[in-house]
Amino acid sequence: MKSVAVAGASGYAGGELLRLLLGHPELEVGAVCAASQAGALLGTVHPHLVPLADRRLEPTDPAVLARHDVVVLALPHGASAEVAAHLPDDVVVVDCGADFRLEDPTAWEAFYDTPHAGTWAYGLPELPLEAGSARGRDGLVGARRIAVPGCYPTATTLALAPGHAAGLLEPEDVVIVAASGTSGAGKGLKPHLLGAEVMGAMSPYGVGGVHRHTPEIEQNLSRVAGAAVTVSFTPTLAPMSRGILATCTARAVASATAEEVRDAWESCYAGEDFVHLLPPGQWPRTSDVVGSNQVHVQVALDERTRRVVAVAAIDNLTKGTAGAAVQSINLALGLPESTGLPTVGVAP
Amino acid sequence: MKSVAVAGASGYAGGELLRLLLGHPELEVGAVCAASQAGALLGTVHPHLVPLADRRLEPTDPAVLARHDVVVLALPHGASAEVAAHLPDDVVVVDCGADFRLEDPTAWEAFYDTPHAGTWAYGLPELPLEAGSARGRDGLVGARRIAVPGCYPTATTLALAPGHAAGLLEPEDVVIVAASGTSGAGKGLKPHLLGAEVMGAMSPYGVGGVHRHTPEIEQNLSRVAGAAVTVSFTPTLAPMSRGILATCTARAVASATAEEVRDAWESCYAGEDFVHLLPPGQWPRTSDVVGSNQVHVQVALDERTRRVVAVAAIDNLTKGTAGAAVQSINLALGLPESTGLPTVGVAP
Amino acid sequence: MKSVAVAGASGYAGGELLRLLLGHPELEVGAVCAASQAGALLGTVHPHLVPLADRRLEPTDPAVLARHDVVVLALPHGASAEVAAHLPDDVVVVDCGADFRLEDPTAWEAFYDTPHAGTWAYGLPELPLEAGSARGRDGLVGARRIAVPGCYPTATTLALAPGHAAGLLEPEDVVIVAASGTSGAGKGLKPHLLGAEVMGAMSPYGVGGVHRHTPEIEQNLSRVAGAAVTVSFTPTLAPMSRGILATCTARAVASATAEEVRDAWESCYAGEDFVHLLPPGQWPRTSDVVGSNQVHVQVALDERTRRVVAVAAIDNLTKGTAGAAVQSINLALGLPESTGLPTVGVAP
Amino acid sequence: MKSVAVAGASGYAGGELLRLLLGHPELEVGAVCAASQAGALLGTVHPHLVPLADRRLEPTDPAVLARHDVVVLALPHGASAEVAAHLPDDVVVVDCGADFRLEDPTAWEAFYDTPHAGTWAYGLPELPLEAGSARGRDGLVGARRIAVPGCYPTATTLALAPGHAAGLLEPEDVVIVAASGTSGAGKGLKPHLLGAEVMGAMSPYGVGGVHRHTPEIEQNLSRVAGAAVTVSFTPTLAPMSRGILATCTARAVASATAEEVRDAWESCYAGEDFVHLLPPGQWPRTSDVVGSNQVHVQVALDERTRRVVAVAAIDNLTKGTAGAAVQSINLALGLPESTGLPTVGVAP
Repeated sequence: MKSVAVAGASGYAGGELLRLLLGHPELEVGAVCAASQAGALLGTVHPHLVPLADRRLEPTDPAVLARHDVVVLALPHGASAEVAAHLPDDVVVVDCGADFRLEDPTAWEAFYDTPHAGTWAYGLPELPLEAGSARGRDGLVGARRIAVPGCYPTATTLALAPGHAAGLLEPEDVVIVAASGTSGAGKGLKPHLLGAEVMGAMSPYGVGGVHRHTPEIEQNLSRVAGAAVTVSFTPTLAPMSRGILATCTARAVASATAEEVRDAWESCYAGEDFVHLLPPGQWPRTSDVVGSNQVHVQVALDERTRRVVAVAAIDNLTKGTAGAAVQSINLALGLPESTGLPTVGVAP
Repeated sequence: MKSVAVAGASGYAGGELLRLLLGHPELEVGAVCAASQAGALLGTVHPHLVPLADRRLEPTDPAVLARHDVVVLALPHGASAEVAAHLPDDVVVVDCGADFRLEDPTAWEAFYDTPHAGTWAYGLPELPLEAGSARGRDGLVGARRIAVPGCYPTATTLALAPGHAAGLLEPEDVVIVAASGTSGAGKGLKPHLLGAEVMGAMSPYGVGGVHRHTPEIEQNLSRVAGAAVTVSFTPTLAPMSRGILATCTARAVASATAEEVRDAWESCYAGEDFVHLLPPGQWPRTSDVVGSNQVHVQVALDERTRRVVAVAAIDNLTKGTAGAAVQSINLALGLPESTGLPTVGVAP
Repeated sequence: MKSVAVAGASGYAGGELLRLLLGHPELEVGAVCAASQAGALLGTVHPHLVPLADRRLEPTDPAVLARHDVVVLALPHGASAEVAAHLPDDVVVVDCGADFRLEDPTAWEAFYDTPHAGTWAYGLPELPLEAGSARGRDGLVGARRIAVPGCYPTATTLALAPGHAAGLLEPEDVVIVAASGTSGAGKGLKPHLLGAEVMGAMSPYGVGGVHRHTPEIEQNLSRVAGAAVTVSFTPTLAPMSRGILATCTARAVASATAEEVRDAWESCYAGEDFVHLLPPGQWPRTSDVVGSNQVHVQVALDERTRRVVAVAAIDNLTKGTAGAAVQSINLALGLPESTGLPTVGVAP
Repeated sequence: MKSVAVAGASGYAGGELLRLLLGHPELEVGAVCAASQAGALLGTVHPHLVPLADRRLEPTDPAVLARHDVVVLALPHGASAEVAAHLPDDVVVVDCGADFRLEDPTAWEAFYDTPHAGTWAYGLPELPLEAGSARGRDGLVGARRIAVPGCYPTATTLALAPGHAAGLLEPEDVVIVAASGTSGAGKGLKPHLLGAEVMGAMSPYGVGGVHRHTPEIEQNLSRVAGAAVTVSFTPTLAPMSRGILATCTARAVASATAEEVRDAWESCYAGEDFVHLLPPGQWPRTSDVVGSNQVHVQVALDERTRRVVAVAAIDNLTKGTAGAAVQSINLALGLPESTGLPTVGVAP
């Protein structure tokens, strides 16, 4: 058993990570650390984690974290670099924040307005890159520093990547509208996240290309396409706790046929444990992936407009965050990639 | 007081129409008719309509309907034409179905697969057409046959129309993703509409340009633009009872500036009672328009991608159906357009 | 037109009051005051109140409030007395808080732990007391100081009062379990009220008789019964924005029959505009009263256990707070009691 | 590996059972049978069960079922007896329906109006009966015919049983109000279960002691108490997919103290894997047990009314049905009772 410490254990990502660790046969829960909630019982903070109910959250002390085989950082953006600097090189450090996702310092600074901390191996093994690419699955095997993708980038990248990889999509003018459950906004106390505000309400935010996940989506699709992909991305808040539904459209190249489109998606994901391309005509639904590490994907070519419409559903906390972390840890430690990860959602 | 008969009074659109009629100072509820529910008490079918609790639904008899000043048809697609054929010319007939919305028989037949019934005055007075246009507000004044727009076309058309009217948007390659509450799917018993299926779930349907509202959206925007507008339209089902959030994007023409965009939307809706352009930076939320005839609109220019993103929120049953019907009836009868229509939502 | 000032206009009760005032033919919105939100635009705080979007919230200044015909206080518990002390005797002052609801200082101090501020006329005109009672409708006519009932006391009192008034229920051992939408907990930022916590979740709170509405429920029922009624009251939080469903049971006296029970409820509410006793067998549903001032009530006698089960549904913000305030203002000002109040819910 | 056939696999209980079997190390999915849905792909009926997506539902043929080690019947009430009659004695047959739960034919006939089929071992191992009791855990070890408890009886029995077992509660006049997610009503197409009807709505049903789970609750508590317990039971429908919150009150005997109450609950559940008595002051929440086999319980003595208030939260599909089935199968087959059962909920 390898021991995993969690910094930021009081938040939603931290709680989901603990949930997955409790079901993992090769990983065990080590130190559980928090900031303002240090001292609180996990049974109060995460009542669903019954086996950990009597554990107390500790302050986030790098010396404590450093004693573990794996450290997962589920911290606010910008906080990971300093903690990571105190951790030994041979500890597997997995950052659920954005700090080490982007390769381009200019893009980082434009969207985050702080100095770029660096770039780590990218925890999206399904990214269809050529064998040996440091940004893909091969870059995760044995890695000791891993950046977990953002939840929107995971859903949108996996929706569209097969088409970009196969040269079936124009790189310019991708349009994405995605709906997220409110756990994606975290546990911070903001008026618009109150239950009474959220229930019965759909609303967009970060409109006009300003959402910070935009450059990460473009980075992923550009890598896959081998050309600069530009994305109009509009996230929306939906009245549900978990889940992302990403509706992604891109212009098909002139020669593309519906059969080629289907084939590209099928062949791209044929060997993947966690991407489920639905049968033709059946579209993803967020509730079907709740609690699972699955991505449900469907694609169609709209012949009238010559746009390919690709839709992906994920659980933002599982495949969108904590599941991707565990999947990456599995690869880093040489375990089978799917070890301990749920492939079945809790529905209805 | 003018008397209004409702055919299809047992459904959601019919119920909403009755709700609005109960608050209207110049209209009164006449015959309330249904098909399979004929004989049932309204108190059982629509328990929220307390003042009508003891009224019984009657069978749909054109001879009964014909005795009213106004007849509203809230029937399944394809059923209106036959009923309408039995109604006198001087009765105001308002169809909440799709039968008389489209002008192009070819488009009708491609999407509905039945003969085209005809084209009536179009119940979207805010459509920015030149004065005197038969398809706009002027076509409704004194009209005796009116087609109420579809709910998605109302939201999407009003989101984008100012830009197309002002020549700020390219007509090709409009991309729309809209989320609807499940009342938009009606009261028919379908497994995917069960509460347990719907709560916690976002899912698309009618993907790939096959949704029947597509030609209506294109018809509206093309009229406004004076050129053929093509639309990639993806509707999604959201876990809420009421509301549509339409996220609409179109490529800006090369010369368009953010200021011109803002100005176009402001001037287009300056005199409208039911379109509320939010202050810059505030985005629409469906819960704010529940039960009201308002459209909340916001727009931004994404400079990176040169796409205009326009978002509209409506209540699909009010402005999306029954409110538009009453607004049209007001115009048809020579009443002030906003008579009896709520402008304030029930929130939170 | 009489002018109504609102203190605490930024909260849910304040917003609902403004919504009702906008639809009232004899009352107009005066000063809108807030504490920490003073200076904010109403369009930002309550986007659904379109006609007031450009109004700014003012600081809560008694001198400003005093210039109005009516002042409604929607303040945290304990804050009303001081403001009220600065208001002229001839201004109608309506307190939506708890400060002036209880008659018994001992009960007040036991549950609120502060000195008792006093007792005002009680804004529940449907309370079945003998004619002329100062605690009932007659006490509200012409009143200048009015305490609006709590939301749970309104629902539970109206569910059970006919039985206690008719002597059909034992006073001891009433058991009430009520479910409330989360707007009932107000707009304060508390972790358990976040959308992600609330959706999909039912949970009790204030269990064991400690909820502050308990003595108010007992006060009401004891008045009606003419004997000390004791209540076990358990409130629960339900995943909806608005609504209270109160399930109330009391032991039937030995002689009581099902017919007597039905008769007692029917005769008690025969003349009430805002209490709708449903036909036998049809039970209340919170969604049917959303946005309306109605109470939907049903009752049955469980012959096996000899308990009467009475259920009431209200909208906690309308009949539960702001609607009761307007209803009381109508009586205080000599207007017809139902003036400007919605009797139809917004459903589905 | 033992093979488990499921009859009624297309419903919610059947789907949940398949989900649990997919995670069970000693059980494997055998025949999956349905009635009207026979022939359909599981991927269409239960899209969340990805590993079974390509399996087709078979017709319900007793000869097929009989070839398995275990047969689970998730059929409509009244259908199990006939199927069970065709199954060999040494097959473990587990009925998720009500047919074999009640011991008293008179109670059965009063509530179900059909002949009593018989009484099987009762799948609620936590029922605090004396060692060796055929109705408790010992009756399940090695059993070949097992009746899974109803979802409400599970939650309510486990909430109150420790008090009745310890003689701290009066047997008469227990009052229970419980809220259930809509999956508890099954997948049948009924108008009041449509999403648009359910969201935002709380409503009671089966009021007045007529709900069929009433005699089962009384049977359980009477066994534990050693005296006839009478229960006023009111179920309500809540706007969530899964979960039951049972708020149960009973009069404390005169001598009972708060400490004795706490002690009774603690000692009763000290050794149970699936009952989690929360720390004093923390109350159960349905969302914390979603997808898990846990029962979260809390209890308090209301000194004013001398009522004990006990609250339990379960997932109606897991501990309330399919989890109890698997727990019982484990005991029947001699496996550790908790094998393959989740103890951690999926929250938020």
